[in-house]
Amino acid sequence: MSERRLTGIDVTPLAGVGTAVWYRPDADLPEPPAPEDVDTASEQAAFEDAVAEAEAELDAERERTAERVGEDEAAVFDAHIQFLNDPQIADGVAERIEDGLPAAHAVQETFASFIDQFAGMEGKMAERADDLRDVRDRLLRLLTDGERVDLSALPEGSIVLAERLTPSDTAQLDPDRVAGFATITGGRTSHAAIFARSLAIPAVVGIGEALEDVADGETVVVDGNTGEVVVDPDEDTAAAASESTEADVREEAVETADGREIEVAANIGTPAELAPAAERGADGVGLFRTEFLFLDRDDAPDEEEQYEAYTEAIETFPDGRVVVRTLDIGGDKPVPYLDLPDEENPFLGERGIRRSLGPDAGLFETQLRALLRADADTDVGSLAIMLPLVTTVEEVVAAETVMDRVIGDLKRDGIDAERPEFGVMIETPATAFMADELVRRVDFFSIGTNDLAQYVMAAERGNDAVADLGDFRQPAVLRAIDATTSAAEGTDVWVGMCGEMAGDPELTELLVGLGLTELSMSAVTVPAVKARVTEIDTDAASALAERALNAASKDEVIELIT
Amino acid sequence: MSERRLTGIDVTPLAGVGTAVWYRPDADLPEPPAPEDVDTASEQAAFEDAVAEAEAELDAERERTAERVGEDEAAVFDAHIQFLNDPQIADGVAERIEDGLPAAHAVQETFASFIDQFAGMEGKMAERADDLRDVRDRLLRLLTDGERVDLSALPEGSIVLAERLTPSDTAQLDPDRVAGFATITGGRTSHAAIFARSLAIPAVVGIGEALEDVADGETVVVDGNTGEVVVDPDEDTAAAASESTEADVREEAVETADGREIEVAANIGTPAELAPAAERGADGVGLFRTEFLFLDRDDAPDEEEQYEAYTEAIETFPDGRVVVRTLDIGGDKPVPYLDLPDEENPFLGERGIRRSLGPDAGLFETQLRALLRADADTDVGSLAIMLPLVTTVEEVVAAETVMDRVIGDLKRDGIDAERPEFGVMIETPATAFMADELVRRVDFFSIGTNDLAQYVMAAERGNDAVADLGDFRQPAVLRAIDATTSAAEGTDVWVGMCGEMAGDPELTELLVGLGLTELSMSAVTVPAVKARVTEIDTDAASALAERALNAASKDEVIELIT
Repeated sequence: MSERRLTGIDVTPLAGVGTAVWYRPDADLPEPPAPEDVDTASEQAAFEDAVAEAEAELDAERERTAERVGEDEAAVFDAHIQFLNDPQIADGVAERIEDGLPAAHAVQETFASFIDQFAGMEGKMAERADDLRDVRDRLLRLLTDGERVDLSALPEGSIVLAERLTPSDTAQLDPDRVAGFATITGGRTSHAAIFARSLAIPAVVGIGEALEDVADGETVVVDGNTGEVVVDPDEDTAAAASESTEADVREEAVETADGREIEVAANIGTPAELAPAAERGADGVGLFRTEFLFLDRDDAPDEEEQYEAYTEAIETFPDGRVVVRTLDIGGDKPVPYLDLPDEENPFLGERGIRRSLGPDAGLFETQLRALLRADADTDVGSLAIMLPLVTTVEEVVAAETVMDRVIGDLKRDGIDAERPEFGVMIETPATAFMADELVRRVDFFSIGTNDLAQYVMAAERGNDAVADLGDFRQPAVLRAIDATTSAAEGTDVWVGMCGEMAGDPELTELLVGLGLTELSMSAVTVPAVKARVTEIDTDAASALAERALNAASKDEVIELIT
Repeated sequence: MSERRLTGIDVTPLAGVGTAVWYRPDADLPEPPAPEDVDTASEQAAFEDAVAEAEAELDAERERTAERVGEDEAAVFDAHIQFLNDPQIADGVAERIEDGLPAAHAVQETFASFIDQFAGMEGKMAERADDLRDVRDRLLRLLTDGERVDLSALPEGSIVLAERLTPSDTAQLDPDRVAGFATITGGRTSHAAIFARSLAIPAVVGIGEALEDVADGETVVVDGNTGEVVVDPDEDTAAAASESTEADVREEAVETADGREIEVAANIGTPAELAPAAERGADGVGLFRTEFLFLDRDDAPDEEEQYEAYTEAIETFPDGRVVVRTLDIGGDKPVPYLDLPDEENPFLGERGIRRSLGPDAGLFETQLRALLRADADTDVGSLAIMLPLVTTVEEVVAAETVMDRVIGDLKRDGIDAERPEFGVMIETPATAFMADELVRRVDFFSIGTNDLAQYVMAAERGNDAVADLGDFRQPAVLRAIDATTSAAEGTDVWVGMCGEMAGDPELTELLVGLGLTELSMSAVTVPAVKARVTEIDTDAASALAERALNAASKDEVIELIT
């Protein structure tokens, strides 16, 4: 029998080959026994045990996700724990057990009524239905004990197939054992897709019902480069898939075909991501999101703990640069030991540098001390400090004043602290408009395209209703980028990009043409972007950028780059 | 005895003279009688009557405020109604009555505990304490029946003095009977200040404890031009105050000293505001916020009702222009008959033209029919249609396509519909960046500085923690304005401004220098801005604008304009 090919949406530029394992959390329960045959007390006890076990699992997964992927993704587990302990749900289950249903059936019926309510709503409320399904599936797995696939204990080389994978599901996947996954539903920005990119798992989503034709135990290739799933692959296909992933890692710095050097760096959140970034050929770190050191714990990391993290980062890239973004925390991320305000529009609130120059001034100073000490004590590498959510020149001056004071303090303590490279994120329209003033006060700009697009287009990136508007390929966003690179042209200030836009090889030529000389991205896309850089001619890239800046619509931009 | 002068913050450029009436809702209750002398049942009944009466009052005030001031301001009453019906509060009061307190004392004690809780919090939660005080004061007024000043039944010519005026308080004020108010606390953006400007009541706030020296019955001048309160004024002072208000109304169009015509128009929300706008000399309407026709009702106004409102607006300004902004509704304003999403950042969500081209397409078409019919059927005046929250060229093209289709439909129905002036609000950074593309597709731009500043600076205007950043005098905001006027220079497209910035006479020269030829504002400030325009030399104004555009900070801008 020859190989069969199914097509879906590619979400990670990686391929994997392995054995199909269907994960079917929604599978029907067997017919329940007659009510008089049900031991009400033991079913109620089983339900309570399952709730306790589920909560323990959720706590652990929450922690693991916060570490491995990020606090935003981890927050979903808080909602799950709330549902798990919801008295209305507990009462509903207890009543149904009392009426003679086994615990698993009682759970299924009780959740069904709540899920129906939420599923009929829109937006965030509809997402609640997904959370409820997640919690239900977890309880059913625990209650039916062993009858369902346990994602956290799959055999090595498994390719997981599923209708969909929830955040809980993906959090259980062990990248060392899972060779890839493929799902019937889901899109490029679904939870599963984001997890797959963060954990470097080959994945194809949104394949449709055709995936149902694949049987447990078949050999499958999941090719995240092409968006294909190949069932029963030829030997050549399978061999290509297992090779492709690591094929084109370039350890060395790359330049365009005509010789302009482009730094290709990685975005990281925790020191654990340093080694994988180096392995994939990153030249350095273009964005160290230090808030991950501060999240999901009871108090802030002290100077020593931070010092060690920053030292490790600098030493991992002895010939490269590590750009550390100072604490970027705001009302949208819960941090128990900070007094964060409850804001109606947290993305337009007290975030980033606003807090570091305000209520979190103490944390900011400690962070700067740790950074400057790590820089002073390492003989290799190079540190750059970057300020988040800047909108005014005064903020830059104020932050620099704090830094200079800390340098003075350290020198008095006998530490040979020096001024590191000092720059700002360009992620608000204000900084793009004021770039010609800012350029006199910094060493570099790094464009954060996710937030920049969000503010330029007045469209929240997490809001599906406006996601299309908030796309960074909108010509207005390109013009904001161009305003930034134009202001830096002819100065010593370098301009990089650390938003999601930097990691798409389709956009690399446009970005080089816009004048960017550093691109920082998820480690997983570093090889593909490095490869793309080497093919680019900068004159052609400039001409492309010129055309894109004159485009009247996103569609015109997309047409130009594809 | 000679006159005494107190100084506070000016909030309306109007002066009034009248008789001082202290409003003291917080005044102490008399000592309660002994518990055994309290008729528990009748006190509980009195409390319940007061709650019912308070709810009826709140419903009425909500409606009145939505009509007279706006839905944003009216929404506060919803919170009040919720507190009024809060079971915890009702239980607390009932328990205290049971323990032998009269209803008024029970209300005071119960609310005190809740107010203390909220007052200790930050931001929005602290505002809840204000809401609770408001509800408490209302209940106490009803329960103590006649012992307190009733703001809705003041003698004509009253000057209200108070510690502070809550939204409920100001909503009760009848502008025909109140000659002004002065408060100990409060700032330029407090509720009381906004109400005063909307209702054209002379007001000075933030005077401090010195105001306590003024006694009931004294003659007082409240001068919102100077920020002074004059007690026991000389005859000249009093005469000047009663004349000043209407002194400088200019019916005619104005031009700068060197002859550039500047249109000075009014912002309105409902037809009721048309006559006052004309009386204050507005040349036309620069912003008709049509969402006020849609808010606070059970279904959308039909085509006829809208037709009448738009016709009245056009006919009120037979020689002027009426710029009607199409429906600008989003997740931050509740509209029961629209299916509005619950969004995490409503200001970055589905608002304005996004809804008119999406879920509210039917409403949009009906509105355009009503507008185009009103325009066709009036022989005088001139209509302009303006789109809110535009970010892309496609949105403008799509809206124009709908308008052209409606014009075709009307013509087939025998109505002589014509293309009116057609333009966009410049209130997102995207439109400022894309102004050179948009300028080819519209007849005018009108800059909405409140939203523009909010998005350029990534700072929500209602969030006190970042209000200073979101100021429209930030140089980044001026540069966004300049990008807009520069793109229109040399074309037939005129550029106006309808945000709060347009109504400040201190900024008029800067705005003329930036190239604006139309300014639209609250009717109350039209005379002052018209007067200012006549003093301006456009060359000096351009030089001022040039300097402001090169300023590195808001403080430098403020220094330039003062």
